[in-house]
Amino acid sequence: MDLHARYSAALDNDRLEDWPTFFTDDATYRITSKADAADDLPLGIIYCNSKKMMVDRITSTRQANIYEGHGYRHIISAPLILTASETDIVSETSFCVIRIMHTGDSMLFASGVYLDNIVLSEGDLKFSSKTVVLDSHKIDTLLAIPF
Amino acid sequence: MDLHARYSAALDNDRLEDWPTFFTDDATYRITSKADAADDLPLGIIYCNSKKMMVDRITSTRQANIYEGHGYRHIISAPLILTASETDIVSETSFCVIRIMHTGDSMLFASGVYLDNIVLSEGDLKFSSKTVVLDSHKIDTLLAIPF
Amino acid sequence: MDLHARYSAALDNDRLEDWPTFFTDDATYRITSKADAADDLPLGIIYCNSKKMMVDRITSTRQANIYEGHGYRHIISAPLILTASETDIVSETSFCVIRIMHTGDSMLFASGVYLDNIVLSEGDLKFSSKTVVLDSHKIDTLLAIPF
Repeated sequence: MDLHARYSAALDNDRLEDWPTFFTDDATYRITSKADAADDLPLGIIYCNSKKMMVDRITSTRQANIYEGHGYRHIISAPLILTASETDIVSETSFCVIRIMHTGDSMLFASGVYLDNIVLSEGDLKFSSKTVVLDSHKIDTLLAIPF
Repeated sequence: MDLHARYSAALDNDRLEDWPTFFTDDATYRITSKADAADDLPLGIIYCNSKKMMVDRITSTRQANIYEGHGYRHIISAPLILTASETDIVSETSFCVIRIMHTGDSMLFASGVYLDNIVLSEGDLKFSSKTVVLDSHKIDTLLAIPF
Repeated sequence: MDLHARYSAALDNDRLEDWPTFFTDDATYRITSKADAADDLPLGIIYCNSKKMMVDRITSTRQANIYEGHGYRHIISAPLILTASETDIVSETSFCVIRIMHTGDSMLFASGVYLDNIVLSEGDLKFSSKTVVLDSHKIDTLLAIPF
């Protein structure tokens, strides 16, 4: 829960540059939808297979974001721990994301589940793999920020 | 929290047949609304007084669901533990449920509180009684799935 | 999490008179918005600098609320603990609030983060300072209840 709280706080406070630091160097990050996941399609909406790709992605996001940005708020359920050892955790965690437009209007932006592999790395818990399975396939494909 | 996480995951992943397994054999399950609960009306929107009734209910739900189903996502707050002994827990837990239509549109479907009696049964925590108090009385009465 | 669960339950069950009891005598309570907080404006939408002011505020709220009230439901993420000692906790906690109109319609009313200073006082955890930073500046200024 602490890892999820820190991860969400980075995204919700627009500290996107911190986002890759929650992952191991060779971590994979994928956003897909429930329908695609059920079909076991190999590639999702977004795919990174290293921390370096995540850094690049954030750099691109910053350069593209010349318009006034939206705000986000993640609300996270307690994780379902599937397996846990001293160094590895496999968990599933439900979440929803609220988007706050610069007009002040809020909307339920997305919901889904994080499928996470978490490892104890350098004394810190990090994601070695994170798959974001969105409940809806109807999602803004010009996603500005990671989930 | 683990019990709620497992319970929600079963519902959100459409494993409805697992739903009764979270209850003791003679458990009661009730859905009501805040207004009805305040009036202390004996019967709610849905009432089961045994695990067998829950199994029957799911069987009916499956047979009735000939149309393409909705998806659901439960977001759960941390439980408020009212009393706890080695074998019994009484708790109240706020939740909301997002419904995802097959068109991909999402909506806030329901919110409320679980009033739970939880017992340690065969080494596992199970609900001996679960009352779902919905905040709104304006709820789709053709409820497809349990909360 | 227990403190947040008890705090939310008091608000969601309309036990507003209990609200000040979650604070120390000289606690400060402030509601502001993300935009205002970023500008570091000294006063927020609501400001109380003692438990007594909170009691007065609830008394006023009760007297003003001659119309049929709304219902609320807080959904709370796990806290991000920034610092913790045996007697003090500094934490940030994401939340959203659903408002249920007396017509039965529900809406996402607000989201934001609690910036909390929590102290162990008389054997109980209490807020010595609570700043509610709302994500949106577009909020009903005739706020009926605290967040």
